[in-house]
Amino acid sequence: MQITLVQDKIVPLEELEPAYLDRGLFFGDGVYEVIRSYNGKIFALEEHLQRFAESLAAIQITGIDINQVRSRILKAFDAAGIPNAKIYFHITRGSAQRSHIWDDSLEPNFFLTVTELQDDIQATNEGIAVSTHPDWRWKRCDIKSLNLLPNILARRDASQKGCEEAILVDEAGFITEGAASAFFAIIGKKLQTAPLTANILPSITRKYVIQAAIKIGLEINEKSLTPQQASSSDELFIAVTTQDIIPVVKFDRNPIGDGKPGKYTKLLAEQFRSFTS
Amino acid sequence: MQITLVQDKIVPLEELEPAYLDRGLFFGDGVYEVIRSYNGKIFALEEHLQRFAESLAAIQITGIDINQVRSRILKAFDAAGIPNAKIYFHITRGSAQRSHIWDDSLEPNFFLTVTELQDDIQATNEGIAVSTHPDWRWKRCDIKSLNLLPNILARRDASQKGCEEAILVDEAGFITEGAASAFFAIIGKKLQTAPLTANILPSITRKYVIQAAIKIGLEINEKSLTPQQASSSDELFIAVTTQDIIPVVKFDRNPIGDGKPGKYTKLLAEQFRSFTS
Repeated sequence: MQITLVQDKIVPLEELEPAYLDRGLFFGDGVYEVIRSYNGKIFALEEHLQRFAESLAAIQITGIDINQVRSRILKAFDAAGIPNAKIYFHITRGSAQRSHIWDDSLEPNFFLTVTELQDDIQATNEGIAVSTHPDWRWKRCDIKSLNLLPNILARRDASQKGCEEAILVDEAGFITEGAASAFFAIIGKKLQTAPLTANILPSITRKYVIQAAIKIGLEINEKSLTPQQASSSDELFIAVTTQDIIPVVKFDRNPIGDGKPGKYTKLLAEQFRSFTS
Repeated sequence: MQITLVQDKIVPLEELEPAYLDRGLFFGDGVYEVIRSYNGKIFALEEHLQRFAESLAAIQITGIDINQVRSRILKAFDAAGIPNAKIYFHITRGSAQRSHIWDDSLEPNFFLTVTELQDDIQATNEGIAVSTHPDWRWKRCDIKSLNLLPNILARRDASQKGCEEAILVDEAGFITEGAASAFFAIIGKKLQTAPLTANILPSITRKYVIQAAIKIGLEINEKSLTPQQASSSDELFIAVTTQDIIPVVKFDRNPIGDGKPGKYTKLLAEQFRSFTS
């Protein structure tokens, strides 16, 4: 007889919630997105849905109707009635007894939460400290998958150093991106950030940051930075869906510029707000 | 009001099974083991528990009593009454609303299944075909974590090529290990396999294979192979907890030796059986 234990309790297989047999749990076999709304309006929904469809295709989860995903998002967002909301959702390949090889007939699992977003005014106004961590992630970081253990371990390390974000450094000594953000430097009148490669998530916020930078007259330099170059940059910031642009005022304990959010960073944040309002 | 959707259904947060909020699902924030029994006796239990403890420590899941894990395994194994059983278990950091940063007070989740193991006589007797795939895994493959998406994608690729296992090749062009197995070559009177590094899981079966090889008089050469070297080896095989030693008779479509399981592979399998009976 097959036996399943949940904590210390024997549970018959047929009574288990599908979530206990989710391939997302056994293998991280799923992809996700995080979206936000500003004053009751969801920002960049179509871009997030497009990227989600690309992530699904990249790991061969097929048969998902993106229109159905969109209506589920809108249904939950409406039901929640939260003007500034964070919407998280994932799709996994489905629930089944654990086996590396999957059955194409599996029914994917959809999960979504809408929660109130707490804008971190202090971070936005005063900036944050960041610390570097080796980039331990897999080689397909262009896919927004549920395999996030290296990200959370890096974030934990940063947190233990009193920092708000971990900046990941690859084996060649170059910064890829933040554990949960895109990373940018301003040097002179140039905005510098790593080019989009297989090691970088095609960040939607990054795209809007670059648009904002062009609007305020910055030149764009898509080239990876070393931690040394980052430390001596005029300004640094990260960008993340849930918080837009957050100035970085300390990098591995080195103050950036005069240790306060830089002028271009502030201009970019202002410009960014014009996209979202 | 916070909203949660499971598939198309709105579920109040407080009614959700903890499995839906498992950090194992959101981040792959957990570690696992697979053990087997032979004729009612669990093989290498203490080694697996030891490695499990090391995996837990590596991702900072603390406060787990390994004696309790052992008794849960034995309790489930006894209840199942399956002489040749496969025992899978994992511990995740716990269930909570999704947040990269974890709360140290989280209660870890334990999950275990005991199922009947089907020995694949055909694979053992006739050997299998394998194909290579880029090693996309993270940089801490010494930790047996739930971040297994690169493994299952590689297995899928192999399966689509009519192969039973994917052999992973790193960026430098060297074989690390199989997607779910250790990988070995026999060249002359030498057993060759990759050395244990951060990119390799310290396989328990590998340890017993090396012991068996010494017993039958093979020299041990812990050195990575290229796919070209593997293709021209005298014999190849994989080793995996659930199936011991499986001969590899085709590597990326190239027949190995005379296309049948090699003589040393058979001797090793025989020697291995003496450890488990």
